[in-house]
Formats: sequence, structure tokens, C-alpha cells
Amino acid sequence: MIRHELVLDDFSFEAGGRLEHVKIVYHTSRIPRGRVIWICHALTANSDPEDWWPEMVGPGRFFDPERDFIVCVNMIASPYGSSGPASVNPETGIPFFFDFPAVTVRDMVTAMAAVRRHLGIGKIDLLVGSSIGGFQAVEWAVTEPDLFEKAVFIATSPRVSPYLSAGIETQRMALEADQTFRKASDLSGGAAGLRCARAQALISYRCFEGYGLTQAEAGDDTLFATRAASYERYQGEKLVRRGFDAYSYYYLCNAVDSHNVGRGRGGVAAALGRIRAKTVVASIDTDCIFPPQEIETWAPFIPGAVYKRLTSSFGHDGFLLETGQLTELLCKF
Amino acid sequence: MIRHELVLDDFSFEAGGRLEHVKIVYHTSRIPRGRVIWICHALTANSDPEDWWPEMVGPGRFFDPERDFIVCVNMIASPYGSSGPASVNPETGIPFFFDFPAVTVRDMVTAMAAVRRHLGIGKIDLLVGSSIGGFQAVEWAVTEPDLFEKAVFIATSPRVSPYLSAGIETQRMALEADQTFRKASDLSGGAAGLRCARAQALISYRCFEGYGLTQAEAGDDTLFATRAASYERYQGEKLVRRGFDAYSYYYLCNAVDSHNVGRGRGGVAAALGRIRAKTVVASIDTDCIFPPQEIETWAPFIPGAVYKRLTSSFGHDGFLLETGQLTELLCKF
Repeated sequence: MIRHELVLDDFSFEAGGRLEHVKIVYHTSRIPRGRVIWICHALTANSDPEDWWPEMVGPGRFFDPERDFIVCVNMIASPYGSSGPASVNPETGIPFFFDFPAVTVRDMVTAMAAVRRHLGIGKIDLLVGSSIGGFQAVEWAVTEPDLFEKAVFIATSPRVSPYLSAGIETQRMALEADQTFRKASDLSGGAAGLRCARAQALISYRCFEGYGLTQAEAGDDTLFATRAASYERYQGEKLVRRGFDAYSYYYLCNAVDSHNVGRGRGGVAAALGRIRAKTVVASIDTDCIFPPQEIETWAPFIPGAVYKRLTSSFGHDGFLLETGQLTELLCKF
Repeated sequence: MIRHELVLDDFSFEAGGRLEHVKIVYHTSRIPRGRVIWICHALTANSDPEDWWPEMVGPGRFFDPERDFIVCVNMIASPYGSSGPASVNPETGIPFFFDFPAVTVRDMVTAMAAVRRHLGIGKIDLLVGSSIGGFQAVEWAVTEPDLFEKAVFIATSPRVSPYLSAGIETQRMALEADQTFRKASDLSGGAAGLRCARAQALISYRCFEGYGLTQAEAGDDTLFATRAASYERYQGEKLVRRGFDAYSYYYLCNAVDSHNVGRGRGGVAAALGRIRAKTVVASIDTDCIFPPQEIETWAPFIPGAVYKRLTSSFGHDGFLLETGQLTELLCKF
């Protein structure tokens, strides 16, 4: 897929503030046009789905960029190209840090909609989003219902839950516990806090069973268990090494807390009732942040939605891992 | 109940190191003797169970200190009286901080056993432990099997699981992310990290459903969800305000990672097979750190153990909250 940039002028943010220029990075297939598949990425991913969803997107995969016109937009506030707190503030010559306007899921959708208009796409054949990618997808399906033929929402929600919001807060607390974060002297500020936040997040993305399968201590001899701990540290370090900074992470956490498709629309049920796309909603049986019992409460509000519970030993991360079940689900759809 | 102190001389720690004097704080009923009930407390509690388990322990409660001889020992490394990293090192006149020897669950049991001998108790009618209190209780029931008539293990495990160990590591990462922690200049070091660690822990002690019941946002108008976040901050702050310090917390986290009743005993199954107490094992249906499906794998290794699954909307913390079900279970027992 090819990387593109689009600059949006005079961008007003939902929570207040505006910027003269907001850069949006996105990827598309190299082919001129085909079935339009719009993929929304999750919290720490980027606009190249071949990179973070390789079993689903690529030549010969269900989403084939040699056959389909695939589009994926990097979220505002992500450090992977689109404008955010890690971008250079033209007024100061250093990163925006906390001077970047607060970002909501609706701002992300505003940017996606602008890319869509820029590309001259009048109809999207399939909209796909999981996790916070699903937040954007659900929001967009509600705001422009006639745009989408089909939609798939996986392991996601129309509104941030109290449990998810609590987890997001503890991740912000980790960033804030690192005294280098508020100093904001360079983008390495808060790195120790970010490692912790990521390690915490991972626990909520997995579940008891998955850790048992992959991180069990060998034998009975060691005095202190270390294997799962070393995995946590590794995952925290990995996020920092792939160029994620604490400021972008902080802004994205805040965006998670903004998510409510029912805001100003008479609540979640009324908002979901606007969706016209033929929709499949999928949950994962071991997902503890978007548990099936929650998804089953709102999926019926989407007219005609088909609901499917996938099985996984790996909790929420099943959306990245259970690609066989996902492919089967999408094929039937 | 009355607070007592006992000084143990020449205490050798399982992981190495010894101290000339280790102080152990414990509470007992005021009555001279009665049915002996030994209660083991959990991670951040203390040796006064009337304080942290008021629905279960007190005059007229199931555990009645006016009728039963109740004993509860403050764990080594806790900041609530027994020796630990927050105690003053007699060689330096300041707290031990990281110079305190590493503490294991077996060290805690060694201290409890010394208190038992000091009190001249030859038979314990009922041993009760939940969570890390259960770690101590299971360990003790294995090491001195003839001492106990009955035992109740609630929401606990004979060995730290990879999932729990991962969560413990992220809590240590929060302490370490706070740059004041390693400075160790006074006991307020690492307080911001500790607030975060506690808030994280709370998420693992509760579950999706419980947060939904108590921390839902009011209405659809707010731009960013704040209620569950403010609850997390409040809980973190509360632990610091009740005199908990990051150093004690760190040592207790390490002790959690030491837990394996099977170490040096041919594994968990063989160790649990030694237990002679009439035992009840209880799980809580929504507990995500000691889920029923895990408890059901090891409970059968305890000869004759009766297993009961309790129901709660509040996850692991159900052991503190579902006192009606617990009382009923204990009454039958």
C-alpha cells in the first residue's frame, strides 16, 4: 500500500481549539479503484494495515490491496504521521506537547471524512473497525449512514464503558507518575510511565487463560516468578522502541474517554438506530474490556445487525489473532 | 481485639539475609481462650480484622472476638507494624528501604508459626485466608498439616499465576516510573507510582460489571467520561493517606511472586495432598485474578475439600463484600 499525506486547513476540534493546518497521513492500495474497504486502526497501530494485521490484509488475504481499494487513515494524535502532540508546533519549533487541542473520536472521524471526500469516494463497500478503530467506525456509520454498504464492528463499543475508562485512567496515572512527563522537554518525557501504561493495557487486552498458555513459569524451583513479568517489561519497552511517545498516548487515552455515539443524539440506542449499513457485530468470548454481555446489549440497536461471538484464549487481542474465525465470518458476510 | 508485639530473634529469610530482630505485630481477642480462629489478612490490610472485615468479624458476627479466640498476624513487609522496608534500620537510623531482605510468603508463615508457639496454641480450630491471606493459609496448612482442624481458602491459589504475576509487575513498573522511588530519601518516595499501582490493582480486584453498576457516567452530555477515572484516583490516594508506602508495597508485590506451595515439595498437587484440615475452597464467579476455572483445577488436590462458587458483581473484591454468602457457607461448614 502507498502512504499519502493530506493537509486539512482551519481544523476545528470538537472540544475547542483550532489549528490552521492539520496533517493527515493515510494509506491506500496502489490500484486506481476497486471495491472500497475502509479500515480503522486501533490505539497504537498506524495507517498501514499490512503492517499490524498481516493475516487479514495483503496479497491473497481476505483484504487484498491488489484487488480491493483499501484505505486506512492514521488517527489524529497518533505519533505515526498525522498531527498530534508530538508534531512540531510551527509557532515554537518544538513539539506541541500539551498545547495540542484535546482530540475526540469525532475529530478522528471528521478527518477520515475529509480524506474520503479528497479521494472522491461516494460509496464505501465495507467499513471495518476493531477496538478504538471500532469507535471511529461506529461513529462514522452513525454520522454518514448512507455512505456505507456494509460495516463490521469487532470487539468494540458505541460508548466508553466505566471499566474501560477506569483502565484508561490508570494508564494516564502511570504517565503522570513519571516526573519527566510534565516537564515535556523532549518526546522521551514520560517514557518510563508509558512502558508501565502499555504493560497495564496489555493485561486488559489479554486474559487469565492466555497468560497461562504462554507465560507459565518452567518448573517449581525458582524462588520468585519472573516470566510473565519479563513479558510485561518487554511489551512496554517494545512500544517505546517503535517510536510511540507518552504525549501521543495521553491524548489518545483522552480520546477514548470522549467516545459516546449518543452524545447530542438522544443516547446510544437512538444513534445506533440511524445506521443503514448491513452490519455484523462480533465479540470475543474472553474479552474483558468489551465483554460479550456488553456487546449483546447494544448490537440489537443497529437495524438488522447480525451478531457473532468469536472464541479465543487471548481476550480482546483475539481481534488481531483469531484471523481464521474473522475470515470465515467475513466470507459468509 | 488487642494489639500485641513479638520480637523474633535471629530471623533467617528464605531468599537469603537475616535480621537480628524482626518485630511481629498481631491482634487477638481479649478473652483468655476459646475456639481458635486464625485469620490471614490480604495485601494492604492489617492485623485487626474488625477493621477491614467488619461484616464478618466483631461482636455478634460469625467470627465473634467475645466468644472466639481470634488471631491475626500482620505480614512481614507490611507497613502496619511488623518489620519491613519502612521500619527503621537500627544500623542507620533511617528506614531500611531496599536494604530489607526480600520477603516470601513462607517467611510470613514462619512468623505466624512463631506467634502460634508463643501463644502456646496446640490446635487451630479454623484457619481462614482470602487472596494473599489465602496464600499464607494454604502454605501453612501444607507445612503444618496436623495443626488445623478446618481451613477455608477463599479467592486464592496455591501458586501465583502468570496473569497475576503480570499484573504485579505492572504495579512494580508504576512504582519504578516514579523517579522519587529509587531515591528512597523518605517514605513518601514513589507515592505517585503507588497511587497508580493501587488504582491498577483495583481494576483487577473488580470487574466490568461492578464498574458498570457503580461508576456509570450520568447522562450523555459530558464530552469526556470522568466518573470512573475520579474513582481510580480516589482509591489510589486513599491507600497513600492510610499510611501505605511504596517500599512496603514493592516488597509485598515481590512476596506475591514467591508464592508456590509446590516449591521443593514435588509440585502443587503433591503439596496440597499433604493437607489434613477439613477444607472448604471458595471461588467468586466474576474474579478475574483467581477465576473459578483456575480454582477448580487445584481444589480437588486437597483431600476431601469441599468447593463452592460464590456469586458477585464485584469480582475478586467479592471476598470482602459478599459476606452474606460467606457467612452462609461458613455456617454450613
